[in-house]
Amino acid sequence: MTEIKVSSVGERNLISRLSEIFKAPGGKESREKGVLIGAGSDDCAVLDMKGEDCLVITTDMLHRTTDFPAEMSPWQMGWMSAAVNLSDIAAMGAEPSGLLMAIGMPADTEIAFVEELAKGIQACAEFCGTSVIGGDLDTHAELTITGTALGRVKKSQLLLRRGAKPGDLVCVTGYTGSAGAALEALQYGKPVSETVLKALFEPIPRTKEARILAESGAGTSMMDTSDGLAMSLYDLSRESHVGFIIRKSSLPILRDVREFVSSPGKLTELSLYTGGDFELLITIDPLKLKKVQNICNLTVIGECTKYEAGIMLESPGCELTTIEQRGYLQLKAEEVDKSYLSKTN
Amino acid sequence: MTEIKVSSVGERNLISRLSEIFKAPGGKESREKGVLIGAGSDDCAVLDMKGEDCLVITTDMLHRTTDFPAEMSPWQMGWMSAAVNLSDIAAMGAEPSGLLMAIGMPADTEIAFVEELAKGIQACAEFCGTSVIGGDLDTHAELTITGTALGRVKKSQLLLRRGAKPGDLVCVTGYTGSAGAALEALQYGKPVSETVLKALFEPIPRTKEARILAESGAGTSMMDTSDGLAMSLYDLSRESHVGFIIRKSSLPILRDVREFVSSPGKLTELSLYTGGDFELLITIDPLKLKKVQNICNLTVIGECTKYEAGIMLESPGCELTTIEQRGYLQLKAEEVDKSYLSKTN
Repeated sequence: MTEIKVSSVGERNLISRLSEIFKAPGGKESREKGVLIGAGSDDCAVLDMKGEDCLVITTDMLHRTTDFPAEMSPWQMGWMSAAVNLSDIAAMGAEPSGLLMAIGMPADTEIAFVEELAKGIQACAEFCGTSVIGGDLDTHAELTITGTALGRVKKSQLLLRRGAKPGDLVCVTGYTGSAGAALEALQYGKPVSETVLKALFEPIPRTKEARILAESGAGTSMMDTSDGLAMSLYDLSRESHVGFIIRKSSLPILRDVREFVSSPGKLTELSLYTGGDFELLITIDPLKLKKVQNICNLTVIGECTKYEAGIMLESPGCELTTIEQRGYLQLKAEEVDKSYLSKTN
Repeated sequence: MTEIKVSSVGERNLISRLSEIFKAPGGKESREKGVLIGAGSDDCAVLDMKGEDCLVITTDMLHRTTDFPAEMSPWQMGWMSAAVNLSDIAAMGAEPSGLLMAIGMPADTEIAFVEELAKGIQACAEFCGTSVIGGDLDTHAELTITGTALGRVKKSQLLLRRGAKPGDLVCVTGYTGSAGAALEALQYGKPVSETVLKALFEPIPRTKEARILAESGAGTSMMDTSDGLAMSLYDLSRESHVGFIIRKSSLPILRDVREFVSSPGKLTELSLYTGGDFELLITIDPLKLKKVQNICNLTVIGECTKYEAGIMLESPGCELTTIEQRGYLQLKAEEVDKSYLSKTN
């Protein structure tokens, strides 16, 4: 018997092997059972609720050594555990309906730590207009938090990764590269502003923006940028069968990040290839841009092209280079310790 | 600052501290947001789906050292991870709508192990008429599996822990004490039949029975017995404000378990005070018993009394003794290693 280990196959390969076993929904039988979108192809699974709504649901497991930089406070660990899941709900255009938190923690954890963690979870849930409706507590060698978030959205407003068409505008909420700059600062012990660190430690789920975008009917596809902008563009490209031209000069970057970074190359690296920003990446019908542009903090960064044209970065001098398919898997890593730093995929 | 540790407060105390922080739903605001039942008071949280249905949802985190006896196969670990969650869905009378599995595993785990685990999850999901619709995979020092199950049930058919009335009959599906006998056999290295071991390693979610019971309208309250029959009776008692008389001679016990056990006292101990059976405990309107008695494997074990009468065990000679409030928390433990053995609560 061959003894292939998990470490030697990579996450995406393993997911694809397991999907075979789970007979990934999508077929006739699944649809009859109300599964509109199954595992793996979008930010959330989607269940038909029989009426005009559908239910979106996602789960994410975080571990102390691999997912929480040592500098994070317990409140921030709680906030982030809720935020990573609520961001996936936002990515579908849905309104959150509830959060379940399963927490395994060492028996010698101080109660004060657990209470701070819970306060961080509660603060993020409240910020997103929802609450913790269930969970599980037990003891475990390493702090491990699995959050599950539920949301609801009208079927007609659901925003998937597929749906973008050539000619659509590509937009992002907020700023890109902030979390990447914070990681860089932590890794090399460089000074960086509180604003930048907060972008990494307290990512803001774009719940309100998501609802505005979904209700507007202007969006054609959407996802979050938790794995980095480049990886997200590749995901949208695969699901929507489009290419992209992204204008380098249009990428929204915090002034603090521009000041922190020494070279323009580094700035592009952080903006495209490191994750943790949890912004929304959305493609918008150009005729409908006006409907949403002034009601949420949205920046047009490029446009959709034919799939065959690839995923390109346009310099201010109109030079085109290919955006690489690499990034950073949502503060996840195959190696333990400082592995929350940028890595190739 | 006092530095109280998690280990010194106990699970239920900690849950109550955290519930304060999470402002446990149940209030007006929660109901407006569609939360019918929040964390902690039932087997699942319940969300209003606006139409005639409600959604039930539960999550459970399992760890290799504390939740899976060393003798279990990877397939059985997978089955159990799905089963503990699907049993909670059954406990509400609901039909499962999907399963999400977050799996953290050591990097040196063999792919063959992971595939067997996935096959066990899939087999249990399929047995319950549902499928894996989402999940998360990453590497982690110890195998940790957090399952989340969703289900749907008409509001009029939802079975809660509250609702039992004095005079109602108390029934259980299947057998009681089988998982307890298997644990006893493993702990002391005693020989025991395959049937008994299977009861512990491959617990069967009572999905079909749950639907029959819910559709019949005969049940007044329901939960599963994963924490042991005694603990479950205490939970129903608290939520329904009833007492119980349970007839010792009526407890359904497998012949293999009777043969395995040396003394009648031990038999009572296993039937009442060890968990892992995952059967349904249901109270039934006596006028409606006939509607369900012949369509699912149900045993009447006693009846509901006034709350003040307590929770009593009646011997064949009509002697009454109090059933103690102790049990075994769903293969969970505060201590690591062999701590899946019976413990007081």
